[in-house]
Amino acid sequence: MDIKICLIGKGNVGTSLIELLKEKSEILNEKFNLNIKMVAIVEYDGALINEDGINLEEVLSKGERFRELPYWKVDSKPTDLYKKLDINICVEATPTNPNTGEPALSHIMEALNNGINVVSSNKGPFYLKYQQIEDLAKNNNLIVKYEASVASVVPALSIADCLIGNQITRIKAILNGTCNYILSRMAAEGITFSKALKEAQELGIAETDPTLDIEGFDAAGKLVILANKLLGWRKTIKDVKIKGISKITPQTIELAKSDGLIIKHLAIVDEDELIVEPRLIERDSPLNISGTLNVMELQTKYAGPIVLMGRGAGGPEAASAILNDLINIVKKRG
Amino acid sequence: MDIKICLIGKGNVGTSLIELLKEKSEILNEKFNLNIKMVAIVEYDGALINEDGINLEEVLSKGERFRELPYWKVDSKPTDLYKKLDINICVEATPTNPNTGEPALSHIMEALNNGINVVSSNKGPFYLKYQQIEDLAKNNNLIVKYEASVASVVPALSIADCLIGNQITRIKAILNGTCNYILSRMAAEGITFSKALKEAQELGIAETDPTLDIEGFDAAGKLVILANKLLGWRKTIKDVKIKGISKITPQTIELAKSDGLIIKHLAIVDEDELIVEPRLIERDSPLNISGTLNVMELQTKYAGPIVLMGRGAGGPEAASAILNDLINIVKKRG
Repeated sequence: MDIKICLIGKGNVGTSLIELLKEKSEILNEKFNLNIKMVAIVEYDGALINEDGINLEEVLSKGERFRELPYWKVDSKPTDLYKKLDINICVEATPTNPNTGEPALSHIMEALNNGINVVSSNKGPFYLKYQQIEDLAKNNNLIVKYEASVASVVPALSIADCLIGNQITRIKAILNGTCNYILSRMAAEGITFSKALKEAQELGIAETDPTLDIEGFDAAGKLVILANKLLGWRKTIKDVKIKGISKITPQTIELAKSDGLIIKHLAIVDEDELIVEPRLIERDSPLNISGTLNVMELQTKYAGPIVLMGRGAGGPEAASAILNDLINIVKKRG
Repeated sequence: MDIKICLIGKGNVGTSLIELLKEKSEILNEKFNLNIKMVAIVEYDGALINEDGINLEEVLSKGERFRELPYWKVDSKPTDLYKKLDINICVEATPTNPNTGEPALSHIMEALNNGINVVSSNKGPFYLKYQQIEDLAKNNNLIVKYEASVASVVPALSIADCLIGNQITRIKAILNGTCNYILSRMAAEGITFSKALKEAQELGIAETDPTLDIEGFDAAGKLVILANKLLGWRKTIKDVKIKGISKITPQTIELAKSDGLIIKHLAIVDEDELIVEPRLIERDSPLNISGTLNVMELQTKYAGPIVLMGRGAGGPEAASAILNDLINIVKKRG
C-alpha cells in the first residue's frame, strides 16, 4: 500500500524521521506491505516537492543545503500542497510558539479541514486546543496522533489502548528531563541551582533560555495532554497549578536527604487537579530516576500502579514515536 | 453490540473476571457500545449455561456453591458449547499442567477450530506450542490474545503495538514475584534462602510446592512468550537456559553488596539466547525492584531502553488484562 505523507519542519525531529524512514523502508514494506512516500518536506520559506516520492538519501546528503535541490519550490505553503498532492498523512514537527501553539496549530487544523490525517510532535496545539482538534478530527472521520509530544519514546499516550480494560485514576510523572537532571546533580554534588543549570546548559541539556523548563511550563503542557488522553479530561494549560524549581537550595535538598527523602519535580493528576511542583518522594520510589529520563506512574483502579520509563527527548526518540503513529493510522484505516 | 463469551475455569482469575465484568458492564456499554454476555461458565465437571447471558451477580453471591444454580448442567464440555451457543470469544483460565499445557491447550485449539476467538490467562500452551496456536488462529482468520499470561497487568505483550515504529533488540526482566520477594528479603535481612522461602509461603506469596518458581521454570515460560511476541521469535521453553535461586547464600548476597551490587533473578533475551538465571545488577538499575513486582527493560534499536513495571500476579490484575484483550478483539473485529 502506498501512503503519501508530507513533513512540515525539517529540524532535529524532522531530519531524524527522514533518517528513520530511509533506514526502515524495506522492513516497512516486508512487514506491513507499507510504502511510505514523502511527497513534500515543508519549511517556513518553501518546500521540497516530488509527487512520486522524494529521494530521502539525497535530501540527507545535502544536510542544511537542501534548498539547493532542483525540486525546492520557494514560498510553497502547506495548504496549497494538501490540495495538490493527494496527501494521506501530514507530519507536523515545526518549532512552536508555546503561548499560541503556532504555526503548528494552523497546520494541524488546515490538514484536518482538508481531509488529511495528522501526526504531530508538537504539544502546544494540544495543551491549548485539545477539544477543538479532537472534535474536528472526529467530525471529519480523521485520526490525529501526537505520541512524540509527551515523553517522546515512552508510549505515554498509546499505552491507553493497552489499559482499556482498566481505569487510570491518578498519575505522578517526571516529564521534564532538564529539571530532573538539575535536581539529580544538586542532590549528588551538593551544588547550587544556578551551578547545576549552567552545567546542564554547557552539556546541551538545558536551553540558553531555560525558563519554560525550570519554571514548569513544559511539564505542565505534557501533563494536560496526559490527563486528557488517559483520563478523558478536557483541560488546557491554564488549569495547571505550576511551581518551578529555581528556588530550591542545596540546604532544602540536604534536609530532605537527612529524612531519607528526595526532591523531585513532579507532574501530578489527582482528583480533579493538575499540579506541577517540587515534591518529596521516598528514596526507593519508582519515580526516583536520575539524569534526563522521564517516568510515569499510572495508578489504576483495578490493579495497582503501572510504571513506564524511558528517554523523554531527542530526535531519534521522537522520530520513532512518529513512525509508530504513522503505522497505527495506516493499520486503522487499513 | 452483543458479544457472547464463555469462561472456562472459575478459579481465582475467572471469579475476578466475573466481578470486573459485573462492575464495568455499564461503562462498557456507554463507552464502547459493548454488551458482553457471558453465556457459559465451564468447570471440569459441568457448566453454568444461559443463552441470554448469565446473571453474574447471582453467580458471585453463590460463591463456591455455584453448582446449586438451576442452570448448572453436569458434564457439559466446552466443545459441545462452542457449537451450540454461538460464542464469539472463549476465555481460558483453568489451572494448567506446566509440562503439557493441558487442559488449556486443547480448549484453545478446539475453540480456534470452531471459529471462536480466544483470550487466555494461561502461559503453558504458548511456551509449548506458540507457533501452532498462532498459525491456527491466522489460518482461521481469528484472534488469540494472552496478555494476562506474562506479568499480569503490565502490558508486556500489547506494548508491541506501541513500539511498532521501533525495534526491540534485547530484553532484561524480572518475571517471577516469588523469586524477587525471596531475594529482596535475603538482601534486606541477611536471612537464608530457606527462611525467606518459608516466610513467603506463610504470606501466601510462594506456593506449597514452590519448585516451578524458585527453579526458574515459571519465568522461563513467560520469557519465551515475550521473545516470540516482541522479537518475532518462534522458541519454546526447551530453548531456555534455566538456573534457579535455591543455591544462593546470604554470603553471596553480602559479597555482591560490598561491591555495590544486587543479585536478581533475571530473564534475558539477548542475541539468539534465552536465559533465566541469577545475575548481578547495579544498585540504581531500573531492574532493582523489591517485593513481588515484575519489571521489563526493553532495549530498542532507535531510542534506548524502555522500562515497564507493575504487579505481576493476582486475580484482579489478570482479569483487567483479560478484559483489555476482550475489548481489543471486539475493536479489531469492529
